Amino acid sequence: MLIYDFQKREKEPLYEFLYRCIKEDILSGRLKAGTRLPSKRELARDNGISVRTVLGAYEQLIVEGYLTAKEKRGYFVAEVEASPVRRSPVPEFPPMYQEDQWFVDFTSNTVMCEQFPFSTWRKVMREVLSNGGQELVRRADFIGVKELRQTIASYLYRTRGMEVSPECIVIGAGIEYLYERLIRILPRDAIYGMENPGYRKIPRIYEDAGLTWRCIGMDENGISMESLIASQADVIHVSPEHHYPLGTVTSATRRQELLNWAGEKADRYIIEDDYDCEFRYRSRSIPALQSMDRRHRVIYMNTFSKTLAPSIRISYMILPEKLMARYIKTTNFYSNTVGSCEQYALARFIQQGYFERHISRLKKRYFTLGQLLIQTLRQSTLLPISEIRGGESGTHLLVRVDTSLTDVEIKWGARQQGICLSCLSEFLQETAPEYEHILVLQYADLDENTMQEAVRRLGNIFTQW
Amino acid sequence: MLIYDFQKREKEPLYEFLYRCIKEDILSGRLKAGTRLPSKRELARDNGISVRTVLGAYEQLIVEGYLTAKEKRGYFVAEVEASPVRRSPVPEFPPMYQEDQWFVDFTSNTVMCEQFPFSTWRKVMREVLSNGGQELVRRADFIGVKELRQTIASYLYRTRGMEVSPECIVIGAGIEYLYERLIRILPRDAIYGMENPGYRKIPRIYEDAGLTWRCIGMDENGISMESLIASQADVIHVSPEHHYPLGTVTSATRRQELLNWAGEKADRYIIEDDYDCEFRYRSRSIPALQSMDRRHRVIYMNTFSKTLAPSIRISYMILPEKLMARYIKTTNFYSNTVGSCEQYALARFIQQGYFERHISRLKKRYFTLGQLLIQTLRQSTLLPISEIRGGESGTHLLVRVDTSLTDVEIKWGARQQGICLSCLSEFLQETAPEYEHILVLQYADLDENTMQEAVRRLGNIFTQW
Repeated sequence: MLIYDFQKREKEPLYEFLYRCIKEDILSGRLKAGTRLPSKRELARDNGISVRTVLGAYEQLIVEGYLTAKEKRGYFVAEVEASPVRRSPVPEFPPMYQEDQWFVDFTSNTVMCEQFPFSTWRKVMREVLSNGGQELVRRADFIGVKELRQTIASYLYRTRGMEVSPECIVIGAGIEYLYERLIRILPRDAIYGMENPGYRKIPRIYEDAGLTWRCIGMDENGISMESLIASQADVIHVSPEHHYPLGTVTSATRRQELLNWAGEKADRYIIEDDYDCEFRYRSRSIPALQSMDRRHRVIYMNTFSKTLAPSIRISYMILPEKLMARYIKTTNFYSNTVGSCEQYALARFIQQGYFERHISRLKKRYFTLGQLLIQTLRQSTLLPISEIRGGESGTHLLVRVDTSLTDVEIKWGARQQGICLSCLSEFLQETAPEYEHILVLQYADLDENTMQEAVRRLGNIFTQW
Repeated sequence: MLIYDFQKREKEPLYEFLYRCIKEDILSGRLKAGTRLPSKRELARDNGISVRTVLGAYEQLIVEGYLTAKEKRGYFVAEVEASPVRRSPVPEFPPMYQEDQWFVDFTSNTVMCEQFPFSTWRKVMREVLSNGGQELVRRADFIGVKELRQTIASYLYRTRGMEVSPECIVIGAGIEYLYERLIRILPRDAIYGMENPGYRKIPRIYEDAGLTWRCIGMDENGISMESLIASQADVIHVSPEHHYPLGTVTSATRRQELLNWAGEKADRYIIEDDYDCEFRYRSRSIPALQSMDRRHRVIYMNTFSKTLAPSIRISYMILPEKLMARYIKTTNFYSNTVGSCEQYALARFIQQGYFERHISRLKKRYFTLGQLLIQTLRQSTLLPISEIRGGESGTHLLVRVDTSLTDVEIKWGARQQGICLSCLSEFLQETAPEYEHILVLQYADLDENTMQEAVRRLGNIFTQW
């Protein structure tokens, strides 16, 4: 006879309580495999419940494989491994990952929260949600919402003089994601070339994807052609508009050389990272490699995560037609990774001129901030500065210091001061003396009020040792 | 002497017009490399413009590398490749990719637009945007917004009895994206095993990532243990709750066998695809493999793209602690791929009970729709149906037909009728006679009004030949 204490069941439905009790008996080994269970009628009578309740519990146990029903013979316990140890209920979970907290983070290149155009973004989002219909719910084109692609194409034409087909733009959730998709349509055995020094995420993506890659040195005109040729790279990642962290602008001559290099062999490509092109303060932006490319070898990449907010994950790449055809053929089974609402909201935000106004506000701010930082650094009596570079574009300065400290000691000293800091040498694959003792100070995330104190703390690094 | 027609400049600033004219002359070859340009003063006088205007143009040309300035000697045209051919301005771009249009698409497994809870989603989104602060702008944790992870953990506890740490949940823009991230932390030389028949995107992801994979046969209890062992797979993808397209529910015994199999060797893992677990109409959902896993070998995956809207790209995976530690270590330089606003909105949507209400509405609808489709199919005089399976869970039926047509002919016939259709044989790696002549009818996207006509057209396939 199988009797359970139905007083214990609290608010659970009867059949569920019964189901749970029997299951626990099976799992704990109290009901052994092969045991015949009481008939529905018997169990109902013994426990003072209805036959329907028993049937509900038995059926669930059958579906889950704890019982088997044999016609005209009854219900039997199935072969299930007993598990005497129960896991503790809802355990306490300590955090496995936490980001560091800093007084100032000179490595953050993202816009300050205060600069985010909340009210217009909210307005635009509300409009999209109010006017939107099916297109907000339906699966978007796998290359992204058409309206946004068209808007980006005309934005690029207006602001960068680029003639781009919306059909060749791919929207994705971040440059890293797009990069991984891109790698899949480039020749599998390609050797990748990376600026050295350069943006550190790129080699990590290469490593992560198991690709072969080489470093290519820089000179004052951009990536060095000599080093490029020596590297035997097929696909190179460059930032001609504004190299990070050196700040180098690739000259027109070098741009042509790069395009010629790409044209020499069938499977050579240039990935143009145009990140930062919006922030040039004194002169106009320089035409993108993409606009000069007549051989369909340039892949252009940019993102809104830097200009708008790091929490908005919308980036895009522009593919040459032939690559786009390959992309469509091989990748169309993937879904687009950006939510449609945000894509429509961004399209509207650009169309209504909010984006350009926002950029122009940011430009003013970044220019002023950069000048102020230069001035504050120069006034510091503690900092052994020998040279400051930057301020005409982008959002970082290079500050060379005269010190006997190593770069590791500088970084460690900064950490003691609550300051997160990079040195130029960290952007290099192998260190070189001319790249040592240079601080890379990102100021996009800095504010005027903490600047004095930040610089004072920077000075402390060099006096406390 | 260099004279330009300043009448032509329209609204352009003077310096920009001058810059453009000189640049065009350089690119067209009219100004040859090495040519010395007039001094600023000369050019200003000759064209009746200010020296400052000339300086502006020259400086821009220098930055772009078209000119070089030699101290005390003047400005010289740099070595730039001439380009006699100009690209046509803003060309017409024909669409490169378009999705097919169907009268009914029996392969679409996404919710109908009409079912999307627009008003509550809008409300929640508005609340997030109005109350939100820094957290909406700041870079989210790379594993996703904490509030959403916590909300998912308690949702899973409430509805599936799962005890999951929010610290082991990773939010990402779609299952496909998460899958690719996951692959990177699993052993590089692992052999992947895939249900056969099975969800077709999975082997495409494997192929795309260059992985080795094998097919594993199914029996009535789930994936076949014999076939699994023969396959020598290390990592298997299974859908124990509701196999697609067979509809098989993996029995409790088989679940234990799978967990035992995984426990036998150090690097064996089970990827549990719990997609569809929400849609079980008659019995309760069966506990997930993840809840039964005591050896930390189960990776659980689910998505909101199916339950909420395909345009909302929010999916998640739950990793065993050890894998999570590896994920944090190797992947923390990637940014999270989902916009923060939507993550907060979804968290709120679940917390306020809207999600569960939405699911329960959908369940009712899908159940009714399934029953109606079964009835309509049975009433069809044209369809040579011999068996219908499904309707108790999920959103598709398997319909076996008695016909001399091949599956390819059936599919082609459907296409003629404006109907997109899959046959079960398409989900197999190698076809087998017992899997032929079975239509897979997804009805999530169907509506009552077109059902009669859809079934009539299905019937036409078999009469017109």
